[in-house]
Amino acid sequence: MIEKSYAGYVERMRQLADLSNAASLLHWDQEVYLPINGNTSRAGQLATLSGIIYNLQTEPEFVALLNELSINPNLEPEQKKNVELSLKEINRKLLLDRKFVERLTLTSSNAYRAWVTARKENKFSLFAPWLEKIVKLKQEECQKIGFSEHPYDVLIDEYEPGMKTRQLDHLFSSLKPELEKLIQEIRNSPNTSPDTAFAKQFYPAGEQWKVGMDVIGLMGFDFESGRQDISEHPFTISLGLRDVRITTRIDEHNLFEMLWSCIHEGGHGLYEQGFDVADYGLPKAEAASLGIHESQSRLWENHVGRGVAFWNFYFNKLKMAFPAQLESVNENTFYAAMNVIKPSLIRTNADELTYHFHVIIRFELEKGLIDGTLTVADLPARWNELYKKYLQLNVPDDNSGILQDIHWSHGSFGYFPTYSLGSLYAAQFFHQVNIDIPDLQQEIATGNLKSLNAWLQHKVYSKGKHVDSNELCKMITGESININYFIDYASQKYRQLYLSSH
Amino acid sequence: MIEKSYAGYVERMRQLADLSNAASLLHWDQEVYLPINGNTSRAGQLATLSGIIYNLQTEPEFVALLNELSINPNLEPEQKKNVELSLKEINRKLLLDRKFVERLTLTSSNAYRAWVTARKENKFSLFAPWLEKIVKLKQEECQKIGFSEHPYDVLIDEYEPGMKTRQLDHLFSSLKPELEKLIQEIRNSPNTSPDTAFAKQFYPAGEQWKVGMDVIGLMGFDFESGRQDISEHPFTISLGLRDVRITTRIDEHNLFEMLWSCIHEGGHGLYEQGFDVADYGLPKAEAASLGIHESQSRLWENHVGRGVAFWNFYFNKLKMAFPAQLESVNENTFYAAMNVIKPSLIRTNADELTYHFHVIIRFELEKGLIDGTLTVADLPARWNELYKKYLQLNVPDDNSGILQDIHWSHGSFGYFPTYSLGSLYAAQFFHQVNIDIPDLQQEIATGNLKSLNAWLQHKVYSKGKHVDSNELCKMITGESININYFIDYASQKYRQLYLSSH
Repeated sequence: MIEKSYAGYVERMRQLADLSNAASLLHWDQEVYLPINGNTSRAGQLATLSGIIYNLQTEPEFVALLNELSINPNLEPEQKKNVELSLKEINRKLLLDRKFVERLTLTSSNAYRAWVTARKENKFSLFAPWLEKIVKLKQEECQKIGFSEHPYDVLIDEYEPGMKTRQLDHLFSSLKPELEKLIQEIRNSPNTSPDTAFAKQFYPAGEQWKVGMDVIGLMGFDFESGRQDISEHPFTISLGLRDVRITTRIDEHNLFEMLWSCIHEGGHGLYEQGFDVADYGLPKAEAASLGIHESQSRLWENHVGRGVAFWNFYFNKLKMAFPAQLESVNENTFYAAMNVIKPSLIRTNADELTYHFHVIIRFELEKGLIDGTLTVADLPARWNELYKKYLQLNVPDDNSGILQDIHWSHGSFGYFPTYSLGSLYAAQFFHQVNIDIPDLQQEIATGNLKSLNAWLQHKVYSKGKHVDSNELCKMITGESININYFIDYASQKYRQLYLSSH
Repeated sequence: MIEKSYAGYVERMRQLADLSNAASLLHWDQEVYLPINGNTSRAGQLATLSGIIYNLQTEPEFVALLNELSINPNLEPEQKKNVELSLKEINRKLLLDRKFVERLTLTSSNAYRAWVTARKENKFSLFAPWLEKIVKLKQEECQKIGFSEHPYDVLIDEYEPGMKTRQLDHLFSSLKPELEKLIQEIRNSPNTSPDTAFAKQFYPAGEQWKVGMDVIGLMGFDFESGRQDISEHPFTISLGLRDVRITTRIDEHNLFEMLWSCIHEGGHGLYEQGFDVADYGLPKAEAASLGIHESQSRLWENHVGRGVAFWNFYFNKLKMAFPAQLESVNENTFYAAMNVIKPSLIRTNADELTYHFHVIIRFELEKGLIDGTLTVADLPARWNELYKKYLQLNVPDDNSGILQDIHWSHGSFGYFPTYSLGSLYAAQFFHQVNIDIPDLQQEIATGNLKSLNAWLQHKVYSKGKHVDSNELCKMITGESININYFIDYASQKYRQLYLSSH
């Protein structure tokens, strides 16, 4: 029985949030603490819970209430917006019948296993038949949900509401030549590559952990409303608005990996901790989009964490933690080492410039697969061709190429572009925050991140999902997404590093 | 829609197990990792999940299926037993209407908070009004469910199916004089109290943790199907048949606390790991009773862990972990120090003899509260009187007396007796296993616990809930519970320690 009112809607939404938070805890635990033999029952628990969530979400009585509320003239604007966004999400679910969803879940689960095997054998052909099935199902999903311009729009919309293939085409075609020019300049630079060997010395896990915890504490991560743990792949997950879990990975022979993963996930974590408890369960307490979520991690990682100001403050602290390893390193060499630009094969290891080409390649391939102009059979050749074209790299094997990402095995098409969007939004927002807070760089250089925290809280976190990424960008910066901010930031930073005479 | 067959029953039971395992993870996480501000949303998540579990359990269609299956002549005996036990549990639930359950949950939750405050102020009067409400509700519960002899039977039955107040009266009245006699002998013993100061030195947490992990590994705890963590109050919880979590507490100035909590919870954990995965979700894969569960922890803690044989093997290993702290300690003094008998005020710190009086006191008080012969107003005086009578102790304040246990604030009446039952069963089972495995003590003395593991697996774990504690005791030892086994074990052990001339 659902109460036929806005309160009834809120109650059901909170119930759904409770259940999906319980599912999130099952996921989190699986990544950080689950004993190996617990995996079988864990899969069953997640399946049971998601079945119950689906039933409660799509219960006819609830859908009817949502439809009634959506035309109820007595609702406050904020209430109206919550209902509208919930209805959109549920309508999308309803367009995909239960059987289709089950087929997709089952196929993805098999595809994931095939991908793991293919990675073990370094052989794309073992994954190809499953990828074909996944692509067919995703095409079917686009048809079922419907689109006006391009089928791929349907898939992007799940992660970046309102964003179109056409806009991404436009964005990436203006980004490409600018980036190519800058990377070419760096390639031709007379400056030799910075020394990075010091970062590969032995850095004990215990000390690294302490530094990472200190850094995210400094960023403002609230350890009374969240925690950090260790996992193989770093991630952020909310188990409640005041229970945000981030994870990091520690490699004792790579200091940077821990640093960037802590700062990156810390940025995601701050966003999740920034929602108002009064909005629990409602779209107001959700991220605007994956692109905006990523803008928060990248803003902290690239614009704060890889910036001069932060290391003005933090380098001495780091040196105290690792006096022997950093003995002969100074602030300048440290800064140069963390900002090396060098085309590489693996997306997750890429620097902030060449990273975009990894995304653009996947965007072009996904678009082709979904609109049928590219077949899975032609995919490997096309992958390698694009890596040659954009990054001048030969792909030696499938694991270093087409098999490197997990996303397709999960059926996550349309996800990759949000990484680049995040990076572009981050640059645009960071440009603005430096105008709004003229002393920001000096504040950062003394370890004071309070104004930045407050700005992000006010400008980004507090809006939740009530404004989509485009609206949010316009509210904050006065214009839609614009690649020039990223290009300006990058040109200035990397010309100074590579092209200025020291 | 439930399939109208035994398979349909199994499916629903597994779904329920999945959900209750998810709830168990929420509980576990709350005790070990939850950030403090996550508590509010955690309470909501648990409430939502338990509401959904209740609805699925008591759904009329499912209850009808259970009733049909219970008279279906085509079921195998094991199937019949599963259905019968599930039906018993659900019928009990159905006798308590939803409203009553909600009232009880809400009252307990307030009572728990009042108990916490009362503990802070060391003032029973702050808890008393809530305890009165709880007692009234538990009396109401007894009436709703019904009984033939004593209302308290209803409450015991939830933890120890089949056990009656009358039987406990009988058991405890024969146990009391025997124990009093033995404790009196020890009190009059010319042997001075053993030296225990060495156990209160500084034992670093890291080293203690390693020893604890080693000991539970030696006991046969499977770390691929479970794990150990740290929590304030040690406990065991299953999140799946191959995902058993135990916790321990480490006090750097008390070596024994970690040792006994690891071995105690390890014994609980082994029981939980011993069920067959094929029985997931069914009573066959549940403990026979809390008393039998406790028999497993006590058998390991008291009969193995506080026994001579185990320390013949393990004392040298422990000495290697703490060479400085144990330098002047030998095996005999160590054994004597871990087996000190001394009446004390706090149940959880009590030795294995005086422990029973703590339970007997609570049993007598609970019985009186439930049958109305004792009021909450008279409770503190009665508590203090009984501690004087049985343990010759004056209770100096409420925290050391009537406020020490959490159980009543949770509404857990009828739980305490299972602690003593566990201890009695443990002695009776351990007597039998030494007959069945004549070399057991020698095996233990070489660190070989395999035959004991196999015996417990075969005799206890494999039966699940399909035999109740009384049947199980008869199957294993040829007779019902009999206090003589405990008295014989204790007399022999403690006369040797206290009354023999060294």
